[in-house]
Amino acid sequence: MKCLILAAGKGSRLSNKGLPKPLVSVLGKSLIERVILTAKACGITDFLVVTGYQGKAVRGFLDELQEREDISIIHVLNEQWDKENGLSALKARPYLHEPFLLTMCDHLFTEDTLRALKDTPIGGDEVLVCVDHEFEHLSSEEVAEATKVFTQKGKVLDISKQLQQYNGIDTGLFLCTPALFDALEKAAEEGDTTLSRGIKVLATQGRVRAFDMGGAPWFDVDDENSLQKAQQGLLRLLKKDTDGPVSRYLNRPISLRLTRYLVTKDLSPNQISFISFMAAIVAGLCFALKGHVALIFGALLAQFSSVIDGCDGEVARLKFQMTEFGGWFDAVLDRYADACILFGLTLHLIRTDPGLGSVAAGYFALTGSLINSYTARRYDVYLRKKQEGRPVAFRLGRDVRILIVFLGALLDKVFATLVIIALIMNLENIRRIWVLYGAWQRSKGH
Amino acid sequence: MKCLILAAGKGSRLSNKGLPKPLVSVLGKSLIERVILTAKACGITDFLVVTGYQGKAVRGFLDELQEREDISIIHVLNEQWDKENGLSALKARPYLHEPFLLTMCDHLFTEDTLRALKDTPIGGDEVLVCVDHEFEHLSSEEVAEATKVFTQKGKVLDISKQLQQYNGIDTGLFLCTPALFDALEKAAEEGDTTLSRGIKVLATQGRVRAFDMGGAPWFDVDDENSLQKAQQGLLRLLKKDTDGPVSRYLNRPISLRLTRYLVTKDLSPNQISFISFMAAIVAGLCFALKGHVALIFGALLAQFSSVIDGCDGEVARLKFQMTEFGGWFDAVLDRYADACILFGLTLHLIRTDPGLGSVAAGYFALTGSLINSYTARRYDVYLRKKQEGRPVAFRLGRDVRILIVFLGALLDKVFATLVIIALIMNLENIRRIWVLYGAWQRSKGH
Repeated sequence: MKCLILAAGKGSRLSNKGLPKPLVSVLGKSLIERVILTAKACGITDFLVVTGYQGKAVRGFLDELQEREDISIIHVLNEQWDKENGLSALKARPYLHEPFLLTMCDHLFTEDTLRALKDTPIGGDEVLVCVDHEFEHLSSEEVAEATKVFTQKGKVLDISKQLQQYNGIDTGLFLCTPALFDALEKAAEEGDTTLSRGIKVLATQGRVRAFDMGGAPWFDVDDENSLQKAQQGLLRLLKKDTDGPVSRYLNRPISLRLTRYLVTKDLSPNQISFISFMAAIVAGLCFALKGHVALIFGALLAQFSSVIDGCDGEVARLKFQMTEFGGWFDAVLDRYADACILFGLTLHLIRTDPGLGSVAAGYFALTGSLINSYTARRYDVYLRKKQEGRPVAFRLGRDVRILIVFLGALLDKVFATLVIIALIMNLENIRRIWVLYGAWQRSKGH
Repeated sequence: MKCLILAAGKGSRLSNKGLPKPLVSVLGKSLIERVILTAKACGITDFLVVTGYQGKAVRGFLDELQEREDISIIHVLNEQWDKENGLSALKARPYLHEPFLLTMCDHLFTEDTLRALKDTPIGGDEVLVCVDHEFEHLSSEEVAEATKVFTQKGKVLDISKQLQQYNGIDTGLFLCTPALFDALEKAAEEGDTTLSRGIKVLATQGRVRAFDMGGAPWFDVDDENSLQKAQQGLLRLLKKDTDGPVSRYLNRPISLRLTRYLVTKDLSPNQISFISFMAAIVAGLCFALKGHVALIFGALLAQFSSVIDGCDGEVARLKFQMTEFGGWFDAVLDRYADACILFGLTLHLIRTDPGLGSVAAGYFALTGSLINSYTARRYDVYLRKKQEGRPVAFRLGRDVRILIVFLGALLDKVFATLVIIALIMNLENIRRIWVLYGAWQRSKGH
């Protein structure tokens, strides 16, 4: 399936320091690159981009992107870029003979939304409009600016900016058939060259269906204000349902701030993973030294490592650099980081009290911690299935473990720290077995 | 989809101590229960069983099975059970108006074969015969006894026991439409009441396709000899592509022998897991004691635990008691068993040499071992994809680890044992990261 992106307009409301709007950066990626890479993540590799205002700069960027991402980007020129956007869409007519996605260069959607729309069956002469029915989050100015739609039983009955009676917002994302072009030409003959007018021509023929995005987030980046909102929204999407309590209320808020800064730098997720790993190794070395000061340094480094450990995944997702290998590699490094931190504490303890108790505390803490991570994958699958988007209250994992190390080392209570970790982690493992056993028993009942 | 099972015949060639043939036990499950549970594992819950000879006993068993397995089993009586099997099939005609599976009570197939056949699209008046083209494994007597088929371009052109020119064996497994019944009646009118003759009637009309089972194993249990062959074949299927070298050449051959005995006992897979776990715990306790004798006892128990650890999965598969939870729970117990064995060795060492070296050896051995299991899942996915059924040459996992413990403890070389485990396991982890990194890089190239 091809994807048509309208990027011809001036977008003058965004103060963009001379950059054309499609090239304005949102968390380290330009608007149009975000649109294209989101679509690419859904399996689309053929793009048509209609350029106009400052088209040369945009086309130069896209040529480079095409090369880098191994996709096809065809340029369509619209010299009447100062006119309505229906004209831009019409310019792409010669290239489109099958159903295609149509979107704007300045509207951002989640992969889930795009994939669901793309996979919706579409009839011969139809158009599907992606509609936001839950638009309470928009300000009254935004609603005034937006194209409104009135839908009934899944059909779009009317669409325009001036609509008085409406129950949804046109998000600027469409699944189209080439029937759209006839409609646009008919609208143009009637003197209205907007895209909405073309859609309306089809709507009066009963050929426009509404695709309900079901409350999924989307962002229309029009000015500095909406740009900030989009950035905050994209960052919020990085929180995970399976974040434990320390991650949720302490690590994640900090790591998201750091990530916001890190994405603007030329730093790969793997490099961030490595920084986090090295911080943990040095923390372990500090712990192995004598004295309270060494413990304090170790504590700070360990907690720093735990926070930074969130950034690699966040940056990867924001930069479309998520890989299965990367996620797995990061997890394996975390296990060695854990082992190093706990071994450092064990050595610290043995220096002052070389008894069997010290050895055993370190050994049981390590066993509990590594098996805690071993059981995490399946437990998280269970949590995700059970909680369906609601935040998870109870999950004792790495975030809790490292916070206990942090506090215990600050307070110079190494033996207690190891004993507490050994107890909490092993008990949590038993609890997980118990919970998953119960879930299995219940699933047999059905 | 319904499954029709023919179980009316006498099967007198199997010396069955008074039991009707469908109830003859094959590795702890009766023939007909195996046939039904294999189909159930493929999602079939509606069965029709044609009984005849000693039908009362068979029906009593099936009533109990229906209750226990929450499936539906309808009895169809064939009082002419001493005649040909086409008559048995005809008795089920009133119950079958859609495509259905047809099989014999004494033929055993793998789930994969059954699932693939079931999911094959079938035309309105067709019959699909599951054909074995690679029948070199059959003895000349077996071939003489078998129903032979001659196929060309996926069509069955001829079928009968007496066929001179043939290129495949009819395995007794069919995907049928009710068109079969007209054909059986036509064949009966012509004086032949065998199932093959009915199939041949359809074949002459070009309506019988061959389903190539592609070398997958199947077993026709007719006499004591073929019963032994089937048992050996079913046990052989329990070997895993991802078995490491020690497992492949030492543990698995022993555990399969034990499993052959254990399936006849009333012992659940979870109970076997628990025995293996307890053996490891006691091994750890022995190791923690002083002296070479304690080490020898520990060594024997640890290796016994490692062998028995194979039996739970084998018994679960043979008894259709595989569950995702059971497999996971067994794996988590194994991790604690590992930790206990290594901790026992570490304590043994510290008793004689309480230096940091002893602590570190134990700690690194534990870290390497637990992370070795942590990386195993993804590494095994990679191996399975890469090797496609060929045995895997190189995989250092639990089987190797416990054998090193066994040998090291027998030889009273505890420090060397822990150092070797620490080295081998951590190096193997690094190697796995390296191998998976390479695979990821290559996959990006495509």
